[in-house]
Amino acid sequence: MSAPLFTLYGDRRSGNCLKIVFAADLLGLDYRFVDVDIMAGESRTPEFLAINPAGQVPAVDFGGGRTLAQSNAVLIYLAEGSTLLPADAFQRAKVLEWLFWEQYSHEPYVAVCRFQMLYQGKRAEERESWRVEKAEAALDYMERRLAESPFLVGTRLTIADISLLAYTRLAGEGGLELSGRPNLTAWIPRCETELGLAEAA
Amino acid sequence: MSAPLFTLYGDRRSGNCLKIVFAADLLGLDYRFVDVDIMAGESRTPEFLAINPAGQVPAVDFGGGRTLAQSNAVLIYLAEGSTLLPADAFQRAKVLEWLFWEQYSHEPYVAVCRFQMLYQGKRAEERESWRVEKAEAALDYMERRLAESPFLVGTRLTIADISLLAYTRLAGEGGLELSGRPNLTAWIPRCETELGLAEAA
Repeated sequence: MSAPLFTLYGDRRSGNCLKIVFAADLLGLDYRFVDVDIMAGESRTPEFLAINPAGQVPAVDFGGGRTLAQSNAVLIYLAEGSTLLPADAFQRAKVLEWLFWEQYSHEPYVAVCRFQMLYQGKRAEERESWRVEKAEAALDYMERRLAESPFLVGTRLTIADISLLAYTRLAGEGGLELSGRPNLTAWIPRCETELGLAEAA
Repeated sequence: MSAPLFTLYGDRRSGNCLKIVFAADLLGLDYRFVDVDIMAGESRTPEFLAINPAGQVPAVDFGGGRTLAQSNAVLIYLAEGSTLLPADAFQRAKVLEWLFWEQYSHEPYVAVCRFQMLYQGKRAEERESWRVEKAEAALDYMERRLAESPFLVGTRLTIADISLLAYTRLAGEGGLELSGRPNLTAWIPRCETELGLAEAA
């Protein structure tokens, strides 16, 4: 019996954590999952801060002092050499473009709407209107891209799709309505099928 | 005479644009700079949206339909194969960790404080207190890291430093005070010297 490749510290309700679960499961990687309850302060303990000084989940420990944070950085590291990250330099760059866009222009709006409703118990009307507007704009931007292409970059699933899927498929939990975006709503089950999530969804 | 490698559409007041200028100049790349005045709506014209549908600067055009946005994605693409991006897979991942952290936990606070004061003419006391707090926390986080290491990843300049330097060196323009952070304030001129910015600073 070999040791797992890494330990993933996370919360299964967190899309940022699920990204890594989705990619690692698809790649058949062996890992251990350790639950960290951020609402109970477990990402602020000295033990956790030794793994990720930024105090955020997910965080991954590969052993030997090699710890890594930032969900999209972990995705890239795990996907290297697989079809989830294209070998062509420019196609890779386009994948990275989507990953940075996700953290700057999607997650702070789409995911935070959900966080406010699911974790903080807010009602839909208590979300900031500027945040909802930016979330809708992010979903519209994806819709326009997916009108041109079955996946975000090229013709097959990459970590760009995995990263964006994580919170987009849960947008309804943040009071966001996906209907009226036919390409986006077709892309979600397309990705879920590739990831083997179709039945669970 | 050969054609420039790429055209960079940007604004020289924008740290996100300057990241690319810093890296490209250090690498000796030949490029053309086209000014885009975001405050005059020039990032929302049909011509610009054809280059970056997200309507953000910087955006880079390599020709032949190959356009790329997201400053940190461009940095990675340009730095590939140079010492600015380590060859070791795990060290590369740590550079990426900083780049994603920059866009999620630093830029929206440190850069936006500056944007509000420099572009929107706000006074320091008009910045949101939660944003200032997060900016200060980001600077403190860098200070703790730089107490351990001369550069953010390893012992030499990488694109992690270039990315973080862009707005950190201009933090004062956002009403943020760097003093009391000796490792951070020593790191800025250390990077500037490597980038040949020392005299201009």
